[in-house]
Amino acid sequence: MRDKMPADSVGLVEPEKLHIDRPLHLECDQVLPSHDLVYETYGTLNEDRSNAVLICHALSGNHHAAGYYSTEDKRAGWWENCIGPGKPIDTNRFFVVSPNNLGGCHGSSGPPTVNPDTGHPWGPDFPMVTVKDWVQSQAMLADELGIEQWAAVVGGSLGGMQAMQWAIDCPDRLRHAVVIAGAPKLSAQNIAFNEVARQAILNDPNFHGGHYYLYDTLPRQGLILARMVGHITYLSDDAMHSKFGRDLRSGRFQYGFDVEFQVESYLRYQGEAFSRNFDANTYLLMTKALDYFDPAREFADSLDDALAQTRCGFFVGSFTSDWRFPPDRSKEIVNSLVSVGRDVSYAEIDTSKGHDAFLLNIEQYRRLFGAYMQRVAAEAGV
Amino acid sequence: MRDKMPADSVGLVEPEKLHIDRPLHLECDQVLPSHDLVYETYGTLNEDRSNAVLICHALSGNHHAAGYYSTEDKRAGWWENCIGPGKPIDTNRFFVVSPNNLGGCHGSSGPPTVNPDTGHPWGPDFPMVTVKDWVQSQAMLADELGIEQWAAVVGGSLGGMQAMQWAIDCPDRLRHAVVIAGAPKLSAQNIAFNEVARQAILNDPNFHGGHYYLYDTLPRQGLILARMVGHITYLSDDAMHSKFGRDLRSGRFQYGFDVEFQVESYLRYQGEAFSRNFDANTYLLMTKALDYFDPAREFADSLDDALAQTRCGFFVGSFTSDWRFPPDRSKEIVNSLVSVGRDVSYAEIDTSKGHDAFLLNIEQYRRLFGAYMQRVAAEAGV
Repeated sequence: MRDKMPADSVGLVEPEKLHIDRPLHLECDQVLPSHDLVYETYGTLNEDRSNAVLICHALSGNHHAAGYYSTEDKRAGWWENCIGPGKPIDTNRFFVVSPNNLGGCHGSSGPPTVNPDTGHPWGPDFPMVTVKDWVQSQAMLADELGIEQWAAVVGGSLGGMQAMQWAIDCPDRLRHAVVIAGAPKLSAQNIAFNEVARQAILNDPNFHGGHYYLYDTLPRQGLILARMVGHITYLSDDAMHSKFGRDLRSGRFQYGFDVEFQVESYLRYQGEAFSRNFDANTYLLMTKALDYFDPAREFADSLDDALAQTRCGFFVGSFTSDWRFPPDRSKEIVNSLVSVGRDVSYAEIDTSKGHDAFLLNIEQYRRLFGAYMQRVAAEAGV
Repeated sequence: MRDKMPADSVGLVEPEKLHIDRPLHLECDQVLPSHDLVYETYGTLNEDRSNAVLICHALSGNHHAAGYYSTEDKRAGWWENCIGPGKPIDTNRFFVVSPNNLGGCHGSSGPPTVNPDTGHPWGPDFPMVTVKDWVQSQAMLADELGIEQWAAVVGGSLGGMQAMQWAIDCPDRLRHAVVIAGAPKLSAQNIAFNEVARQAILNDPNFHGGHYYLYDTLPRQGLILARMVGHITYLSDDAMHSKFGRDLRSGRFQYGFDVEFQVESYLRYQGEAFSRNFDANTYLLMTKALDYFDPAREFADSLDDALAQTRCGFFVGSFTSDWRFPPDRSKEIVNSLVSVGRDVSYAEIDTSKGHDAFLLNIEQYRRLFGAYMQRVAAEAGV
C-alpha cells in the first residue's frame, strides 16, 4: 500500500471469482446448474471463523465495497465510509466478504455473462432472481469459504432486505442482521417508480428485446432515464434544495431545452455516467427483485410470523429524510421484531441527505452503527 | 339539456374561438403578432360585468373545465366537481370563463396549430411561453369580452400560479385570487421530475426534433413515460396504497416483465390514454412554464415584495398529502401575504388523495372553497 492511500482504508484490493458447481433452484422455478460469484474480502478470517461479515449490495452496487484497485484509482469502493480499519465495519476485527449478486453485471453470472448452454451472453434469458435466491447463492459462497455462521449480515436498502431474508431463511447461519434504510416490502409508489424505469429501458429502440449485445449497441437512453428517476428518489427534497436550489447554469433563463437549472445538469450527468457502467438487463432484474421482496408473503402476510423464524440480533437503521424507504417502514420491521421478542436496536438518524445517507459519512450514523458492530465484534471474540 | 344530464352540471357546452389581433410580446423576447384562444363560458355575465370568474388550467388541462359536449359524452370537464349550479364556483351566480392557454394543444395557438408565416404547424418553433405570458394573453381575452375586472381568478397547481401572477401583474383587474395546491416557485425536486419527463420526450426516436407532425408519427413512448412520472407525483403514497397496495393482476408472481402489480397496469393505462390526447411539444412547453415560474425573481427574490404589488383578496388552499406542492409551499405564499398586510384565507384540507385532490370532490374542500366563493359572489352583488 502506498502512502497516498488513506490510513483508514483497506487499501489495494482485488476481486476473486468462485465457480459454484452446485445446482441453484430459483424461486421462478428455473435451475442454474452452476454459477459464478465475484467477491472481495477485507480483513482476516480468525482461527475459529467467528468474525466473518457478509456485505449485501443494493440496486446498483457490486462487490467493490471498499478500497482501491490501484494507486491511481480515484474512487474507493461504494461503502468506503463504513468499511475499513477503525470504521463501523472494522477490518482490524472483522473478515469482510462482499459478493456481486447473481444476476449482476460486474462478473458474477448475470445477463452479460456467457450462458454455457448457448455460448452467447444470457441477456434477457437470464432467469429472474429474487432476494431469497441471493441468500441461497450467498450461503453457497459461505460454504465454499468455510464460514458456517456469519458474525453479521449487513446491508443498506436492497442490501438490508437481503440481511432480513438471511435472518428468516438461514436463522442458524448469522448472529446479527443489520438492516439499514430498508423496508419489509415495497409500497405501490416504490413499485411505480421501478416500473417507470423499466418501461424506459424496455422501450428504448436499442434494447432489442434485451439482445442488444448482439447488435453492438446499448439502450443507453433508457438506462439514463431509469437512473435519473431513481436518483431523484435517492435524494431528499431538502438535499436537492441545498445542493442546487434553483441555481441556473448560465445565470439567466435561456428559454430553450438545453440545461437551464443546475439540477438538470447534475441528473443528466449522473444518468450518463451510470449508463456507461451498468447493464440494462441487470437493472431490470434488480428492480424486479425489489418489487418481489415481501418475506411476509410466505407467512400469510404476517411479518411477525416471518420474523419469528429469526434467531439473530438486529440493528435497524433509518434516515429522517429518506422518502424512498422512510423511517416508518423501518419501524414496521422493528415493531414486528419486538412483538416476536427479538433483540433489536433501532437508530433513526437525523439527516437531510435522503435515502443516499446510508452511503455517507454522517457522524451520528457512524457512531450508532459503529457501537453496534463493536458489540458484534466482542461477541465474536475479536 | 336532456334529463340524463346531472342537475348540478352546467350541461351541454360548446367551445368558442377568439382571434386576438394584437401583438403579444413574450418574456422570451419573441412577439406573436396575433394569436387564437379557445375558451368556454358557463353562466351569465351580469349587467355591470362584476361576476366574471377566470379559470386557469394546469399542466395537462384545457378550456373544457365543466359540462358535456353531447348527451352521449361520458366525461364531464376536468373541474366538474367545482364548477356548476350550487357548486363552489356557482354558475347560478358567476359568469365563468375558461380558456385553453397559449401554447396548448386543444385549439389555442400552440405547437400543433399552423404558423401563419410558414403554413406549417409551429411544432418546436412555437415560442416558449411563461405564466406571465399567459396572464397577458388572458388579459387580452378579458378586454375582448369586455371584462375590466374579474370577480376572481381561480386555479389549481399551475393554474394557481397563474392566479398569483394575475394578482401581481394586473392588480386592478381582479378582486380575488384563488390559489389552490400551488407554490411560489418549483423546488429542485419538482424541476428534476420535469426534466425526466422532458428527456423522455426529447429522446423518443419518433420526436424528430419536435417535427413529428411532418413524419406522420408521434413520440408516444416518450409522452407515456412523461405522464407516468407525472402521475406518480400527483398521487400520494397513501392514495396509491389504498388504490392498489401490492395487488397482483393475476394473483401470483409471473417472474417476467409484463404487468405484475395492479399499479403498473394503472400507470401504463394512464400514460397510454394521455399520449393519445396530448401533444408532446405542448407538454414540453408546459413543464418549462412551471420551471420558470418564480414571481419573486423580478423583485430581487423577495416574495414579499412581489406580493406587495397585489390589491386583491386571496384564498390559498393546500392538501395535507400533496407531496408535489405540499402545504408548506402554500404557507410560504400565505406568510408573505400576511407580512404585506393582504387579506388571505388559508385552508389546509385533510386528505390522503395527494396533489390530485384539487380536482376531486372532497367535502371539507368543497365547503371551505365554496364559502370563500360565496363571499366573492356577495361582493360582486350576485
